[in-house]
Formats: sequence, C-alpha cells, structure tokens
Amino acid sequence: MALTATESATSTASSFGSAVALSCRECGSRYDLGPVFACIECFGPLEVAYEFGAVTRESIERGPKSIWRYKALLPVPEQVESLPNMNPGLTPLVRADRLAAELGLRSLYVKDDSGNPTHSFKDRVVAMAVEAARTFGFTTLSCSSTGNLAGAVAAAAARAGFRSCVFIPAGLEEAKVVMAAVYGGQLVAIEGTYDDVNRFCSELIGDPAGEEWGFVNVNLRPYYAEGSKTLAYEIAEQLGWRLPEQIVIPIASGSQLTKIDKGFQELVKLGLVEDRPYRIFGAQATGCSPVARAWENGYDVIQPVKPDTIAKSLAIGNPADGPYVLDVCRRTGGAVEHVSDEEIVDSIKLLARTEGVFAETAGGVTTGVLRKLLAKGVLDPEAETVVLNTGDGLKTLNAVAGTGVTATIKPSLRAFKDAGLL
Amino acid sequence: MALTATESATSTASSFGSAVALSCRECGSRYDLGPVFACIECFGPLEVAYEFGAVTRESIERGPKSIWRYKALLPVPEQVESLPNMNPGLTPLVRADRLAAELGLRSLYVKDDSGNPTHSFKDRVVAMAVEAARTFGFTTLSCSSTGNLAGAVAAAAARAGFRSCVFIPAGLEEAKVVMAAVYGGQLVAIEGTYDDVNRFCSELIGDPAGEEWGFVNVNLRPYYAEGSKTLAYEIAEQLGWRLPEQIVIPIASGSQLTKIDKGFQELVKLGLVEDRPYRIFGAQATGCSPVARAWENGYDVIQPVKPDTIAKSLAIGNPADGPYVLDVCRRTGGAVEHVSDEEIVDSIKLLARTEGVFAETAGGVTTGVLRKLLAKGVLDPEAETVVLNTGDGLKTLNAVAGTGVTATIKPSLRAFKDAGLL
Ligand SMILES: [Zn+2]
Ligand SMILES: [Zn+2]
Repeated sequence: MALTATESATSTASSFGSAVALSCRECGSRYDLGPVFACIECFGPLEVAYEFGAVTRESIERGPKSIWRYKALLPVPEQVESLPNMNPGLTPLVRADRLAAELGLRSLYVKDDSGNPTHSFKDRVVAMAVEAARTFGFTTLSCSSTGNLAGAVAAAAARAGFRSCVFIPAGLEEAKVVMAAVYGGQLVAIEGTYDDVNRFCSELIGDPAGEEWGFVNVNLRPYYAEGSKTLAYEIAEQLGWRLPEQIVIPIASGSQLTKIDKGFQELVKLGLVEDRPYRIFGAQATGCSPVARAWENGYDVIQPVKPDTIAKSLAIGNPADGPYVLDVCRRTGGAVEHVSDEEIVDSIKLLARTEGVFAETAGGVTTGVLRKLLAKGVLDPEAETVVLNTGDGLKTLNAVAGTGVTATIKPSLRAFKDAGLL
Repeated sequence: MALTATESATSTASSFGSAVALSCRECGSRYDLGPVFACIECFGPLEVAYEFGAVTRESIERGPKSIWRYKALLPVPEQVESLPNMNPGLTPLVRADRLAAELGLRSLYVKDDSGNPTHSFKDRVVAMAVEAARTFGFTTLSCSSTGNLAGAVAAAAARAGFRSCVFIPAGLEEAKVVMAAVYGGQLVAIEGTYDDVNRFCSELIGDPAGEEWGFVNVNLRPYYAEGSKTLAYEIAEQLGWRLPEQIVIPIASGSQLTKIDKGFQELVKLGLVEDRPYRIFGAQATGCSPVARAWENGYDVIQPVKPDTIAKSLAIGNPADGPYVLDVCRRTGGAVEHVSDEEIVDSIKLLARTEGVFAETAGGVTTGVLRKLLAKGVLDPEAETVVLNTGDGLKTLNAVAGTGVTATIKPSLRAFKDAGLL
C-alpha cells in the first residue's frame, strides 16, 4: 500500500499548481505530494497544503466556465483545461423565491449540482483525481461507490483515456447501474453495503494486483476531496463574491461539508470575500444518521450504523470525516439534523413543484432538513441561505415512482372534458 | 383560435426586445407580435422578424452564463435574466478527439445539450415561450410532447409560477413520464401517436376552454422556435467565434435544424463571424424517416409516416418543417440520412465509451448518421465538424438496458480474482 512519501517521486510541483505538500489533519506531519492518503505517524487523513500566489476576482472571472476558473486554488496543472476531462462545475445557483415563500424564508438559493456532466457533484472530485492519476502514471481508474461516483469515474476515464473498473454495492438504482456501465469500463457489484465495498477496495490497494490502480476516493483521496472546495468558490462568486449566512449540506462521508468550509476559509484569507460569520448545517437521512446521532448526544466520535434509507448516495454507515463535520458545525454555530424517507420524498416534490428542480434523494434530504430546522427555529428565516442539491432525480426515480400521469384519454376534446380535467 | 393580428394588443415592443413583427415564411405577410402562428393569407407558418441594434462579441461575452447572453437576438425583454425562468443554455461543446480518431475525422465536437436544466435542448425553446406567455397573460402552460418537452414545460411552469397541463402519447419511457409529472402540474397521456396528440391540442386551442392556455409549440410556436437559434450562437462562440464547416442535427419537426441555420446566417449578417461555407446534415431514425425518404427521392414534399423507432423524441411522422429542412440541406450542400435502431444503440455506446457522454436515443441518431455519412464519403473527414446531442441517456435507459454489471461478487479479493476480472 502506497502509504509513505518515498513513493511519490513521480510528482512534480508544477503538476499540482500551488499545492506544495500533503499534511496530516491530525498531527500536522508533512509529506511530498504522492499517491498516499494516511499519515505514517498517526494514521490520520492527509490533506493538500498550498502556497497560494495572488488570486483576484478578475483573474477568476476571466477563466474557463468550469471549476478550472479556480485552478489557482486546486492541486492541478496550469494547462488543466486543455487536457481531456469532463470540465465540470459552474452549475446553477437557483434563486428559490417560491420555495422561500412557502417555507417563510427571506432569501434562499439552491445550488443545483445536477447540472454537472454526469449529473452529480461527483464530477468535481473525480476531475481532481484524474489529474493526480495522470501525474502518478496510473493506468486504471477505480472507486468504491454508492452509485453516483461510479458513473462519474467511468465517464471521466472514458473521456481521458484510462481503463476503468468501479465497485458498487449490489442492489443499486437501475439508472445508476446503467450509467456506470454504459461508458464501457468494468462495473463490479459487491454483495454487501457500501462499507463492505470500501473495505474490499482497501484490500485490493494493498495487493500487487492493484499497483497501477488509482482509486479516486482511496489512494487519490487527498486530491479528490479538494474538488468539493469548488462548491464553496462557486456559491460565493455566484452570490456576487459573498459568503452565504447559512448553508445546508448533505453528509455521506462528511468530506464535502468539511471542504466547503475549507473553501470559504480560503476565500476569506485570500481577501476574495468579506470575513463574515456563516453557519454550516449537515443533513442526513434518518435511516443512516450516525453523525446526526452523535450531534444529538454531544459525542465527539461516530458510532457506525447499518444504512437503511432510500437516500442511497448518502448511505455511508461509517463516515470517515464524521468527527470533522461535528467540529465544523460546532465552530460555525450550525447543527446536524436528519429526516425520514417520507420527508425526503415530500421534499423532492416540494422542490420540484416550487422551483422546477428535480433532485435526487440527497436533495430531498437537504431540503427536508432545511424545512425541519426552520420549523424548529434553529435556522434563521431572515438569513441568506443556500441549500445543496448534489444529484439528479432521474437517478433515483424509484423514490417518486408513484408520480405518473393524471389521466389517460382518447385523442378528443370530448374525452378531455369528460375526464374532468378542465 | 387566436390566428389574427387583431388579438395581439397585449404585446409591447419592449417585451420582445429587438423583435418587431411576425412574418409569414411562405408569403412574407407581416403581423403584429401576438399569440398567433399561422398566416391568414396563406396559412404559412409565422416567424419572428427583428431589427437588430449593434451587437458585439464583447457585449455577448459580458452577459449571463446562459442563453440570455444572446438576448439582443431573441424575442425577450431586456431584464429577462432577472425574471424567474430556468436559465438554460451555455451547455458544453465537448472536444471529441477520441471519437474523431475512431471515425477518422480530423476535428470533431459534440454539442451536449443534456447539460440543460431538464437535460434536453427543449429548455431553450420553452424559455422563449415562457416569456411570451408572460407578456400575453396566459395562465396555463401547455404542449404536445414526445416526452422531453413535457418535462421542460412542467419544470419551467413551476419555476415561473404558471399552472401547467401537458400532453404526451401513452407508452413513453418511464423517466420522461416521471419527469413530466414530478413538478406537480397535470400530465395527460393520449392514446395515439405524437401526431394524434398534436391534433388534439389544435382542437383544444380552438375551444373556449383553451383561451388562457399558452401552448408553447402551437400558439406560442413562433417565439418558442427561436430558442433553437441559441444552439447556433453557442457553437459559434465556443469555437472561438467561427462557424463549423459541417454540423449534424437531429430532425423531429425539423424546426431546430432550420433555426440553427437561421442563427448562423444572423451571426454572419451581424459581422460576429466570418462568412464561410457550412454544410448542414439532418439525422433521422429509420423507423421515422419521412424527411430522409423525401431527400433520397428528390421530393419537395414530405409523405407522413407512422413512427416505429426507439428514438421517441424524434418520432414525429408528419414534421411541420420538413420541406424547409430539405431547402436548408440542399442550399448548404448537406444531406439527410437515417440509421436503424440497432445503429442508434451502437452509437450511444460508442459516444459513451470514447467521450464519456451518455446520450439519449436522439444523440445515438446523430452520432450514427455522422458515422454513416463518413463511411459513405458524404461528410468530409478533414472539415471541422459538430454533432448535436440534444438529450440525456438517463431518459432513454431502455435503449441500453442490457448494459449492466460485469460481475457480482462477494466482498473479498479472492472472489475478485476468481471472477477473472484482473
Ligand atoms: Zn499524523
Ligand atoms: Zn402567408
């Protein structure tokens, strides 16, 4: 297993832009940029560390219409937009006045990441991992996935010319299975939960057979995870270079939430936005809510659970970044909340009916938590609020499968009138 | 039926930007801008006529990251981007080097309109119709649809606060049915083909019951159709303000193809691109190929057919703009070609495997026609070529339903190796 800095000789500073090292989140030990993900001192997770040059709003606004406009803040080479990749990002920040009115909120936006190439936020993180895989000379792209990631990896591998082999738990939604298979790579279903798939992938990385494999969310995880920062950058830029006062983010591994926080902090440090308080709220499905349970009980550690929810893209029973999520939500004055599968379905329909956004179950989770925390008085109805939709309703059709035609009629005006539809 | 100019009193010049009149495509008769669609002199289709002011590349590039950057060339008000709408457009123009290499083409791009909010090009045309409906004071948005349009109308109505009632032929793909229903409007299935649905809608418009209904593709059709011009504008801008030498466009009603031609012509007249020859190629499925048949036989008129193809979004047996398609393809030195359902499926997989783009069946049709016309020597392999993907593979999953997991295994390295997957 490529754990140590000695194996990172293939990396070069310029391939990673302003990134200069990997740094242990727990003990601060620093490592050269390489395909390593855990600290050899304390086994803590490694994060990318940067030495940013001058970055201005203008230099960003002149950049590509994708996440690459923020390349100066990411571990990617200067010429990244000319390399074959999915060019994700710059998804719509939808002004949600009608939903806000129904919920009694003054100002609400939906960051709709279903607009990405494979229709989930995963295209952002995979794009980072692809660049790292190129630099490290991996030939196969792989991942453990709850579904969305498998499609994103398979598509990105196809575009960039890698072989791909992705792993999913058996029993996923058909749309996610087809979408992971259609790009022509290998798709392997594992009998078990996502956590079983994850353990299997760790085993494969440790084996000589996995030597040329870049697992985007394992041995490339430090780079991969940085992709979520682009959600923070885009939200701030799309608000007119300002941080939202409140933001509701789904929790799967918890990485996305912590990286959005990191992105906001970087924008403040670089002077790109005013330093004003923001509150981060984490959202889980009741059927897989280990972080919300820890929050309720005031724990610092996460007790793993066996997931049972329709929100399969969030069904990670042992979320690696759970403790860091608790830290961020506490530090910013936020909270972690959960909603039932029924509330998830209701919230998908609410968002569709009021804003024309058809969200995946994960978007039902965030919208449901938004509603619940407003009702509880935890969210401030006067504060500018952003809610994330990280995936597409077309991938979780089963959740709203009861939603169909109002009536089937013969092609005549009389039949229409007889059906009482006017 | 609101056929005549006398009913257009609600329109104002400023609501329609630089549009000044409706003009008959057949006899040139002019009408005030109103909810009218057929010439009272000759029953020809009406088109929007403009008096464009000065438009520069710079003014466009400074505009919104949506079709509204071209608002000076569209029948919409100046403040359109601040009104509640889906803000479609500016979808990726994907440089398709790997597909080009497989096909023996020098330079190929995929214009991927699955990136629109409801994942088809229909969001472009519906956005035009919504603005016209607002101006004319309609309260219900409606359409006849082969599926994609129903979802686009229902979503746009939800966002903009209209009631919606959309009509589809019975038996559409599940994803399209759910997507048309989830936004909370009425969805009515009609026993029959798309052409039956269309006839039904004309009947309803003629009835007092339909008085406050804006049918985006019937009484709002002149405005609606203009939305397809934005595909031409975007392709030219994304190529660096240049027209492609060859472009392959799907044919349903044929409107999209003729409007892309119109858009290219406008860019030339406005001096935004160099005037150089371009060739337009139309693509149909063999199971619904009335325009391709007319092309083969050298006819000027279209003989209606009864559609039988998996490419349901193109299954219009009596395409209203078919004769104009023949004109455009003849004038530009293009052609009209068709491919079988089997070639459509192969082409969907080819595009996915080489470029990571998961296309709807309509994208399989254009990619298949691209391949076929190259093999025939009709397309020039040295010329810069654009192929359109107008919809999303997630909406036509059945077409590739056989595409699934490579293997299902127990969560162990031994099981993986035993499955012979390394
Ligand atoms: Zn450490
Ligand atoms: Zn006329």
